[in-house]
Amino acid sequence: MAINEDLWIFTAQCPSRLGTVDVVTRALAETENYVVAMNSYDDRATKSFSIRVELRPLKGEDSLERFRSIFGDRAAPFDMQWELTSPDHRPRVAILVSKFDHCLNDLLYRFRKGELAMDIPLIVSNHPDLKPLADWHGIPYFHLPITAETKPQQETELWRLIREYRCELVVLARYMQVLSPELAARLDGRAINIHHSLLPGFKGAKPYHQAWEKGVKLVGATAHYVNDDLDEGPIITQGVQPVDHGHYPEDLVAKGQDIESQTLARAVRYHIEKRVFLHGNRTVVFPD
Amino acid sequence: MAINEDLWIFTAQCPSRLGTVDVVTRALAETENYVVAMNSYDDRATKSFSIRVELRPLKGEDSLERFRSIFGDRAAPFDMQWELTSPDHRPRVAILVSKFDHCLNDLLYRFRKGELAMDIPLIVSNHPDLKPLADWHGIPYFHLPITAETKPQQETELWRLIREYRCELVVLARYMQVLSPELAARLDGRAINIHHSLLPGFKGAKPYHQAWEKGVKLVGATAHYVNDDLDEGPIITQGVQPVDHGHYPEDLVAKGQDIESQTLARAVRYHIEKRVFLHGNRTVVFPD
Amino acid sequence: MAINEDLWIFTAQCPSRLGTVDVVTRALAETENYVVAMNSYDDRATKSFSIRVELRPLKGEDSLERFRSIFGDRAAPFDMQWELTSPDHRPRVAILVSKFDHCLNDLLYRFRKGELAMDIPLIVSNHPDLKPLADWHGIPYFHLPITAETKPQQETELWRLIREYRCELVVLARYMQVLSPELAARLDGRAINIHHSLLPGFKGAKPYHQAWEKGVKLVGATAHYVNDDLDEGPIITQGVQPVDHGHYPEDLVAKGQDIESQTLARAVRYHIEKRVFLHGNRTVVFPD
Amino acid sequence: MAINEDLWIFTAQCPSRLGTVDVVTRALAETENYVVAMNSYDDRATKSFSIRVELRPLKGEDSLERFRSIFGDRAAPFDMQWELTSPDHRPRVAILVSKFDHCLNDLLYRFRKGELAMDIPLIVSNHPDLKPLADWHGIPYFHLPITAETKPQQETELWRLIREYRCELVVLARYMQVLSPELAARLDGRAINIHHSLLPGFKGAKPYHQAWEKGVKLVGATAHYVNDDLDEGPIITQGVQPVDHGHYPEDLVAKGQDIESQTLARAVRYHIEKRVFLHGNRTVVFPD
Repeated sequence: MAINEDLWIFTAQCPSRLGTVDVVTRALAETENYVVAMNSYDDRATKSFSIRVELRPLKGEDSLERFRSIFGDRAAPFDMQWELTSPDHRPRVAILVSKFDHCLNDLLYRFRKGELAMDIPLIVSNHPDLKPLADWHGIPYFHLPITAETKPQQETELWRLIREYRCELVVLARYMQVLSPELAARLDGRAINIHHSLLPGFKGAKPYHQAWEKGVKLVGATAHYVNDDLDEGPIITQGVQPVDHGHYPEDLVAKGQDIESQTLARAVRYHIEKRVFLHGNRTVVFPD
Repeated sequence: MAINEDLWIFTAQCPSRLGTVDVVTRALAETENYVVAMNSYDDRATKSFSIRVELRPLKGEDSLERFRSIFGDRAAPFDMQWELTSPDHRPRVAILVSKFDHCLNDLLYRFRKGELAMDIPLIVSNHPDLKPLADWHGIPYFHLPITAETKPQQETELWRLIREYRCELVVLARYMQVLSPELAARLDGRAINIHHSLLPGFKGAKPYHQAWEKGVKLVGATAHYVNDDLDEGPIITQGVQPVDHGHYPEDLVAKGQDIESQTLARAVRYHIEKRVFLHGNRTVVFPD
Repeated sequence: MAINEDLWIFTAQCPSRLGTVDVVTRALAETENYVVAMNSYDDRATKSFSIRVELRPLKGEDSLERFRSIFGDRAAPFDMQWELTSPDHRPRVAILVSKFDHCLNDLLYRFRKGELAMDIPLIVSNHPDLKPLADWHGIPYFHLPITAETKPQQETELWRLIREYRCELVVLARYMQVLSPELAARLDGRAINIHHSLLPGFKGAKPYHQAWEKGVKLVGATAHYVNDDLDEGPIITQGVQPVDHGHYPEDLVAKGQDIESQTLARAVRYHIEKRVFLHGNRTVVFPD
Repeated sequence: MAINEDLWIFTAQCPSRLGTVDVVTRALAETENYVVAMNSYDDRATKSFSIRVELRPLKGEDSLERFRSIFGDRAAPFDMQWELTSPDHRPRVAILVSKFDHCLNDLLYRFRKGELAMDIPLIVSNHPDLKPLADWHGIPYFHLPITAETKPQQETELWRLIREYRCELVVLARYMQVLSPELAARLDGRAINIHHSLLPGFKGAKPYHQAWEKGVKLVGATAHYVNDDLDEGPIITQGVQPVDHGHYPEDLVAKGQDIESQTLARAVRYHIEKRVFLHGNRTVVFPD
C-alpha cells in the first residue's frame, strides 16, 4: 500500500450477506470517492464480512460529506458498522506499564520517528519506575499502585483517566496485571496486550522458563485483544525467533524482549491503521 | 485465502478511472455471485487498475452465465480486460529446460503433489539429458537442438509445439537460451523465466561467481516475464537466502538451486492462480 | 561451511571438563589432520561438552589412521564418545510412514537430488497405501499392519527389519503410531519424529484443529528424537509459518504439510551431517 | 551463545597453517582458561585462519595473565594477530551523520537499552541538524561543514577528533560524504558504512529510485567496511525486505530506513562483539 500519499480509510463489518461489497463500492463511486486499494473478506466460520478501502475523495470534503449523507441509510439494512478515517486522524492511546521498559521504550521510539500515527496523552503504571522515561518524552505519567484490596478503586481511577483523556485504545505494554472482567468488558476490542509466548503455549507465568525447560528452538510473542479470559483474547499477530542451546532462561528473557516489542508495535500499528476486524473471538487482519 | 473451497476467480485490469471497482461488484451482486475475498489496486504510476475476486456463484452455472451475459457491455467503456476462471481450470504449461534439472524436478514435484493446479503437456529442451526425468513422469519430451544457425528453425518448431499443445504458459526452467525478440513478443506476458541473481544485480553469465567475488552475504533469484530485453522483463517475485564466508562459488551454485526453484515455483503459482497483473514493464501481485 | 569439498567430520561429546577442546585439537594437529572449521559448546545446564570439526587429512588415510591410533587413549579419561565420519559415509535410514505421503515424498525428493547424503534401504508402514511411491523409487516396502493386540509382534518384526537392514537412523515421517517404551528405548537418539505443532503447544491429536479454534496467526512443526514420553522427546528443530483468517482447519492441514516436510528434512540432514548432540533431554545443534 | 554470563572473548587471525587451532587451545588449557564456545574457520580462498573463543578464566585475572605471558611467543611463528577482550570492555565509537536521523536514532536507542555494549564519546556531522538529538542523549556534537575546497581541512579536523576521543571504531550512519583515500586508509578495518542497496546492485546515488524503476520486489541494505573504492568495501552483513506494487520511490525511501538501521546496527554489534574478521577484501563473520 502507498505510504506517502494521504488517503482516507473506509472500514466496515457486518454479518455475511449478498451485496455487502456492492453497497460500499457503489456509494463510493456515486460520491466521487476514488478507490485506490481495497481488501474484503467474507468469513464462513463466523459468517461475517470485513472490508477496508483506501480512497481519495476527488472533490475533497464535498465527496466525503456526500458519502456520509447517503451511506448511513444504505448500510442500515446490512447491520453494517462503518467508519471513515481521515489521514490526519491520530488515535489517542493510553499505555499501561509495570516495571519492564522495553515495550514502552520501543513504542515511544516508533511513535517519535513517525511510524505510529497516534497520540499518547498518558502513561499509567502500578509502579513509579518508568516515570523518568515518560518525563523525558513529555508525557504525563500516572502512578496508580494496586493491591488485591485496592484493585477495584485502582481500576475505577484507571477507567476515569482513560475517559478523561478520551483514549480510544489502551495498550498493555507488559502491564503484568490482570484486568477485572468489568474493565475488560468496557475495553472490549479497544485494549491490546502482549504475552511473551506463542499462545496458547506456555500460558501463565514465566513462559521463557517453561520454554527453556522444554528445550524449544523457537520462542515467540502474541499480541491479542484483552477479554475476560486471561491469555485467551482474540489474537491479532504473533512473532517468533529462533533460539539455540546457548540461550539460558535469562537469555530468553532478554532476547524475547525484541520479539515482544516488535509484535506489540505491529499489533498497535495494524489497529490504528484500521487493519484489524474483530468478530467474536476471531480477527480478520489485512496486513500491508 | 481459503484453499480448500473451490471458488471461481474473477480478474480484470484496465486504465485507471472512477467506477472500475463498482462496475465489477455491482454486476457480481446482481447476478448472485457471492464475493468471498477481493483485492484491488489502482496504480498512479502506470495509471492502471487491477482487481481479483474469489467468488461463489450462488445459483451455480446460472449465476455465472448471467454475469457473462451482462458484464461484457458494462466493461467495454472501461477498456477492461477480464476473465472468469473456474476452480477446475488447469492451465496447460510448457516447460523449457536445458541441462540443469533442479527447477524442473521441483516443478514436477509440486505439480505431482497438487500444489500447482496445472497440466504439463510437454517438456522441450535443447539437450537430451532430462528426457529420463520427463519419461518418469509420463510427459512427452521434445529435444530441439539449437545452434546459432538453426535458431530460427528451432524457434519455429518450438512455437509450433506450444500452439499444437495449446499451452497458455511457457516456463523457462533454467533454459539457458535467449529467446529471439519475435518469439519473446509472441509470448508476451505468457512466458516466465528464472534468473539466478537478484536482478538487476549480476546480470549476464555466472552470477554466483560474480557474487562470490564481491563477498556478498545474500544471494537470490528473480522470476520475471520474458521480454525482448534480456534479463530485464517485468519482475514477478524474488527470493533471497543468506550465505557466508564458507560458501565458495561452487557452493553458491548448489545452494542457489533451492532459492531458484522456490522462486520460480512461486511465480508460476501466482500466475496460474491469477495473482499477477502486467502493466507495461511493471507487475501488480496479490499474494496469498 | 563449504559444501563442495569432501571433508571428514570429527564429533565428540563428554561431561564438561577443562581441556576437552585441547585434547581434540592437539591430536588432530599431531596427526596432520587439518582443521577447516570447528564449533564447540560447553553447556552449563547439562554440564556437557560438544564439538564438531570439519577436517582435511593432509596425509590421507595415514593421517586418519594415526589419529585413530592415538586418540582413543587420550579421550578415555574424559569419558568422551567420539566419531570420525568419512565424506563418503552414507547412513542407512529406515523410513516409517502411515497413510500421509507428503513427508515421505519430500524426503525421497531431497534424497534423489542429493541434498540428503544417506541410503534408504527400506520403508515400513502399517498401511499398504504408499507402496506405489516406494516402488517408483525402487525401495523395498514392508507392510506391517498393527492393532492393539498385535502391536508387540509388529514391533518385534519392525525391530528385526531395522537390524537386518543395518539402519542407523529411523525416521517417523508421519507414522501416526506411538512406539512402545521398549522400542523407543532401543532407538534412543536414533529415531526422529515430526509432530505437526510447535510443541509443547497443541500436543496430541488434531493440532491444526486446535490451532484454528484458538485463531493463531502462526502454525508450526517440531522434529524431535523419540523417547518414551509421547510428544516430549528432545527437540532438534522447529519450523513456523504465518497463517491468516482465510485458513480453515482443512487449509491448515494442507498448508502445514510444507512446514512439516521442511522441518523433518532439516532435522534429518542435521542428524546425518553430525550436527546434533544429545545430552539427556536437551540437544546442542550446530547448524550450517 | 550465552548472553547473560560475562565471558572473555579471545580472537585471532593469521595465514592458514597446520596447528593454528592447537596453539590457541593448548595455551588456554594450560592457563586454566575454560573454553565455553568456540568457532574457527580456515578460508582456502584467502588462505587465512580466523578463530573466536568465549572463555571463562577459572583463576580469574591470574589465568588471563598467565595466558598473556605465554601466548605471545607461541603465536609469533604463526604471524597471528590476537586479542583478549574483557566482558567489561566498551569500545569507543564515533558516529558520523549528515541530515538523516534514522540510523543515528536507532543506534542511540539500542545503545541506551544496552543492546550495543559501547561508548559514544562524540557525534560528528557536516550539518547542524542533528545536534538536538545528540544533546538529548548528552553526547558532544561537532559540526564540521564541508565543501569541495575545505574537504582536506575538514578531514584533518575529523581525524584529530577521532584521535583525541580515542575512538576505535567510526560508524558512518548515512554520512553522505565520501572519505578521501587517505582517511579511508587510516581507518582501514575500523570504519563501517551503510549503503542503502543490496550492493553491488544500485551503486551510487538514489538507489531506491533505481530500484523502483526496475520494479524489484525486494530492497535491501549493505553494511561494509570503508575502503578507498566507493561502495566496494568488504561486506559485513546485508539485510533485505519485501516491497510491492504499492511502494513508490518515496515509500521505498521511508520503508528502507528500517532495514538500513537494522543492518547497520547488526554490523556494529558484530564488530564490537569481535565476530568479524577481515582478510583483504573479504570478511569471515561468526554470527550468534
